Amino acid sequence: MTADPLDPAGNSQLPAIAPVIMSGGAGTRLWPLSTEDSPKQFHPLTSDRTMIQETALRARAGGGLDFAAPIVICNRLHVREVRAQLSAVGIEPSLIVAEPFGRNTAVVAAIAARLVAERAPSRLVLLQPADHLIADAAGFVAAVARGASAHGRIVTFGIEPTEPHEGYGYIQRAEMIGGGVYGVVRFVEKPTRTVAQAYLSDGGYYWNGGIFLFAPDVMRREFDRYRPDVGDAAEAALADARLVDGVLELADESFARAPSVSLDVAVMERTRLAAVVPCDMGWADIGSWTELWRLGAHDESRNRLFGDVVALETVNSLVWSDGPAVGVIGLDDVVVVAAHGAVLVASKSHAQAVRGIAERLAARGRT
Amino acid sequence: MTADPLDPAGNSQLPAIAPVIMSGGAGTRLWPLSTEDSPKQFHPLTSDRTMIQETALRARAGGGLDFAAPIVICNRLHVREVRAQLSAVGIEPSLIVAEPFGRNTAVVAAIAARLVAERAPSRLVLLQPADHLIADAAGFVAAVARGASAHGRIVTFGIEPTEPHEGYGYIQRAEMIGGGVYGVVRFVEKPTRTVAQAYLSDGGYYWNGGIFLFAPDVMRREFDRYRPDVGDAAEAALADARLVDGVLELADESFARAPSVSLDVAVMERTRLAAVVPCDMGWADIGSWTELWRLGAHDESRNRLFGDVVALETVNSLVWSDGPAVGVIGLDDVVVVAAHGAVLVASKSHAQAVRGIAERLAARGRT
Repeated sequence: MTADPLDPAGNSQLPAIAPVIMSGGAGTRLWPLSTEDSPKQFHPLTSDRTMIQETALRARAGGGLDFAAPIVICNRLHVREVRAQLSAVGIEPSLIVAEPFGRNTAVVAAIAARLVAERAPSRLVLLQPADHLIADAAGFVAAVARGASAHGRIVTFGIEPTEPHEGYGYIQRAEMIGGGVYGVVRFVEKPTRTVAQAYLSDGGYYWNGGIFLFAPDVMRREFDRYRPDVGDAAEAALADARLVDGVLELADESFARAPSVSLDVAVMERTRLAAVVPCDMGWADIGSWTELWRLGAHDESRNRLFGDVVALETVNSLVWSDGPAVGVIGLDDVVVVAAHGAVLVASKSHAQAVRGIAERLAARGRT
Repeated sequence: MTADPLDPAGNSQLPAIAPVIMSGGAGTRLWPLSTEDSPKQFHPLTSDRTMIQETALRARAGGGLDFAAPIVICNRLHVREVRAQLSAVGIEPSLIVAEPFGRNTAVVAAIAARLVAERAPSRLVLLQPADHLIADAAGFVAAVARGASAHGRIVTFGIEPTEPHEGYGYIQRAEMIGGGVYGVVRFVEKPTRTVAQAYLSDGGYYWNGGIFLFAPDVMRREFDRYRPDVGDAAEAALADARLVDGVLELADESFARAPSVSLDVAVMERTRLAAVVPCDMGWADIGSWTELWRLGAHDESRNRLFGDVVALETVNSLVWSDGPAVGVIGLDDVVVVAAHGAVLVASKSHAQAVRGIAERLAARGRT
């Protein structure tokens, strides 16, 4: 047997992939750019393309893997935006699932498993958040290919930690199963800094990339076993949904009955089928402006400037404008963001507290 | 003779006053609030009223002095704004003089002297910048009354310095002439900090308040003596001017021939008629955001917040918004201004360099 030069790893022998993009997040950690009306995934944070565009583009034909057109699950307020942004990069979702409100990731995974099981049961579901940075798309596809070889497993992707990050979940790996895929000892939600530091020293711990790869029937069975309430809620939501013009609209009442729980808590922390693919693909969940400053290319003053910005005698700072002229002078370690008609100025060490600002302004009747 | 209970100082015996308000300033030191289109004097910086409203209101009947309705000299772009702002506080200017562009203060003084000499030659001209802070209006009127008693003099107002301010001009006083009015040894333009420190230690030096009180004929004669070119330019500008609907419109061509020189340089530094009234009236020429921060009432974190602002863990800072929601976290000694659709963020120690920002943005085609 001769190796295909376009597919030296022989990935075309692997199951085909059904990408499912979770675009339900409405975080305020990047306020005022990210708001409920216009969350993070719809903005070009790390390239000329928006996060959801990057997410859709990286799970396309490549490396011999067979990727179907994506299913996107998003808030119903964002259906038009999703379609417009994906269309702008030449991607037509096979389906958009419109949530009336957010219900965390477990029910999303259960819905995704059911939809793919009905439509193309031999495909693996690749469940991905719309708003994560993955700088190395080829590294990502290679990791997915390794995961696709782990038959019958629910595969997670583990990123080698470079610092004791308190904002991420961690995965402790067990023995290798084969082909660069490991078993899992346990999942840990955001640890303290001390604990995260110990993980870093001990080794064998990875950041939980929040991306999952699984056969739809495997996931359905694990829901039946551990959280049948979530599985039943997904079933009921799909039964009541209306398909209108390529959009599957979930009904308020039945979707409201789904417990708001994460896939990690509902299934991953309990299943014996968990696996982890360690990978190095330039992954980050950009959870603060300080993190966005850190991730990108800096100018000679270690600044990152976006938009109509003039910076004088300023170092180690991020200045972002979606329109207004912004002038800064004499700053060090500061984040300045003018977006959606509001302004944030934060010392970098306080930038993770931006949620408090957004909440106080909301309490005054602003968004 | 019995003292009038409403005029215990006997000020009603003094010459009547013709207030002239100089509103030609278009400084960018308070960018982005102050711009060429909408300079400092038209904003409420220190009270609910704008600086020009405060200026007009403080030179009104009070303390027994007879104040006429003011003459306002402003850029022709601002005629409507001047009228609207003064009308809003019940003041109708006796005349508005519209400059096609700024030509500094000497020609303004010469025009003011000629206008008052024609209309009411027995009145004294009280020439005042539209954009200075004077917190104690009664102290101001008392100082004007002292100055009005100094027959034949060009009276300036000297503020006891409280720090070695480099941004102000200084007046060194000579012997007392009488009634709290002193002769003048010399005028000094903005000194170095070392020199300003020496003035402060030596005593006998005052900040030059930029306000002048004089008989119109006295000023005309001093222009004839020291700067006949300025006097002639004023004469020519008035001859070519058109009076339209209460506005005296100066013609571009003749006004352009006026030398751009300050009254201090043209006359005050040379005349033997200079006098100074030392006074304590809460005066300041707000030349930077840092100064505005310093001048006002602070909250318990030593912040000054204006507009729709939320500040967390922030101290010693000024945050100003003319509309946008502004959130700040973790700042110390910082100025944040969102105004006219632009944003400034400066460390307080750099806030006087804001002009550089405004110029760079202007060079990009923004204002």
